[in-house]
Amino acid sequence: VNVRPHIKTHKCIELARQQIDAGAVGITSSKVDEALVFINNGIRSVTVAYPLVVDSKLDRLIAAARAHDVDLRLIIDSPAGVDAIAQVAGRHQKQISIFLKIDVGLHRCGLTEDDPGMVELVQKIIREPNLNFVGLLSHAGHTYGADDAEAARKIAQEECGIMNRVRKKLESNGIEVPEVSVGSTPGTLASDSYEGITEIRPGNYIFMDRMPLRLKVIELNQIALSVLATVVSKNADYFIIDSGSKTLSSDQGAHGMSGMEGFGLAYPLDQFEDTNHEMIVTRLSEEHGIVIRKDFDLAIGSKVRLIPNHSCVVANLLNTYTVLKDGQITAQWDIAARGQVH
Amino acid sequence: VNVRPHIKTHKCIELARQQIDAGAVGITSSKVDEALVFINNGIRSVTVAYPLVVDSKLDRLIAAARAHDVDLRLIIDSPAGVDAIAQVAGRHQKQISIFLKIDVGLHRCGLTEDDPGMVELVQKIIREPNLNFVGLLSHAGHTYGADDAEAARKIAQEECGIMNRVRKKLESNGIEVPEVSVGSTPGTLASDSYEGITEIRPGNYIFMDRMPLRLKVIELNQIALSVLATVVSKNADYFIIDSGSKTLSSDQGAHGMSGMEGFGLAYPLDQFEDTNHEMIVTRLSEEHGIVIRKDFDLAIGSKVRLIPNHSCVVANLLNTYTVLKDGQITAQWDIAARGQVH
Repeated sequence: VNVRPHIKTHKCIELARQQIDAGAVGITSSKVDEALVFINNGIRSVTVAYPLVVDSKLDRLIAAARAHDVDLRLIIDSPAGVDAIAQVAGRHQKQISIFLKIDVGLHRCGLTEDDPGMVELVQKIIREPNLNFVGLLSHAGHTYGADDAEAARKIAQEECGIMNRVRKKLESNGIEVPEVSVGSTPGTLASDSYEGITEIRPGNYIFMDRMPLRLKVIELNQIALSVLATVVSKNADYFIIDSGSKTLSSDQGAHGMSGMEGFGLAYPLDQFEDTNHEMIVTRLSEEHGIVIRKDFDLAIGSKVRLIPNHSCVVANLLNTYTVLKDGQITAQWDIAARGQVH
Repeated sequence: VNVRPHIKTHKCIELARQQIDAGAVGITSSKVDEALVFINNGIRSVTVAYPLVVDSKLDRLIAAARAHDVDLRLIIDSPAGVDAIAQVAGRHQKQISIFLKIDVGLHRCGLTEDDPGMVELVQKIIREPNLNFVGLLSHAGHTYGADDAEAARKIAQEECGIMNRVRKKLESNGIEVPEVSVGSTPGTLASDSYEGITEIRPGNYIFMDRMPLRLKVIELNQIALSVLATVVSKNADYFIIDSGSKTLSSDQGAHGMSGMEGFGLAYPLDQFEDTNHEMIVTRLSEEHGIVIRKDFDLAIGSKVRLIPNHSCVVANLLNTYTVLKDGQITAQWDIAARGQVH
């Protein structure tokens, strides 16, 4: 099974290069300008796993992909999507690999398994001279809302079942389906079978956060992203820290799902990940975090280290990573594609 | 009553200059690096309405304030805060105006009205040769959680009462209190009296959003910030748009308060703010918004215009404003202090 990590989590050139060096076949991205940051920095195989339909965006993406000879892979879930991509691909005389997006239960984009227009839509793709139909793509993001690892495993299994049935349906209509791409960090971690799957696209796994922790598919010390903050005020009930929703975001889960108490875990710097010193960030203003005190004191000016609910949105709020190895700062990396939502 | 707008909402030089030109006495900011963007761009009177306690941050702020001859105003709510600021002010031989931060009910930072250490803390400020005690400062952010305009008005009235009682207490201890600064957009809009108040510091008012709309202190067409998005997919129940939590944020209110349905209002571009065509953004992924359909269709590729829940956090996620006048684009302004959380 190939790994094509989703870089929307880290948005960082250095980390994408490490993923490629570790064996990734390329990257996945969500948005055009996000993808361009990586294309302009030497990444040569890119899936934009997003239904692109706007001519101007497709134009700058496909022009760059042609200029840099990128293996560009896009997804489609509507006839309008076929027309939009085919037109721009023709304009630039660029061959584009196309996945049919399948809705495996998140109910966001994609065709459901029983969509009566599915075969016709794939045939429309195949008829386009610059589009190469390469297979199926799904994202079972509802694994984030699962109650536990077993429930996440079942969702991943279900996804696998749907994708294989859709593949067989297309094959029985004489359509080749060389690739079947799935992906979500909880599903990938909980899954025990990839039968019929050719590629996975996890993103969050590079950092992890409280979401896979809640599902018990990882341990606390497997979370790589933390936020350093300072106690700036306190009262009988709370420490007030200088990290609010403009750093931690207001996310209490992915895809609007909740299931977590508060907005992060806080530890005194010297007791990082010591559960006896674990505190909950219970409320956020834009630049303040309200941390529920336990039976120990912290002086104003003390540092605390935070585990966020959702690292993908935290990274997107900040400009640089400070890289630690064995407690020492070894590098600062630019979050180069931060804010590239177009 | 002086107006000293909080620039954390817009983080934009052009808008701060317009506010100064319109009569603002200076600006308010939350964070040091946010303030520095404005100091380095010619703003000469700055309140950092945040309990600063970290030496390195105070050092770069006070050094810049000295270099640019800025009237710098800071807040204090602890003896540690006095010591931290006094030390750096002494190092740079810079006179700093100091407000005592009063907690008027948000229960975040600040001393409550009956705090037994209040007079002693102010005397500690007064004893410092480089600190000038100038008065009291509060933020009744809990107006955002009020049920309606009348409830917000009562909170503002309460704030006014607390601040005047604290002022009298200090005066009866022989302490002069020349300034009393309050501020929150809902409180400012709902209030009918500023007795004893010398300054207000609203921030959100420059754009507004669904929060003051919910309180009915403004009308829909008084909201200045909107987000343009595209319908990229659809199904029987939803339009899927290319604006998710990385654009709209997951905020459902300020200070972690809720009270709003969904994550924003969506209108077809040609029916902007037409309540018959008003739709709710009911769910967000990072780059997708899920909009509940009404009884009309929109083609894939159609534009929709969104009113966000909380404009302060939306502005902080993006890099530029596109300025419209009478439906025409007249400028693009840099969101220069975006992401300056240090």
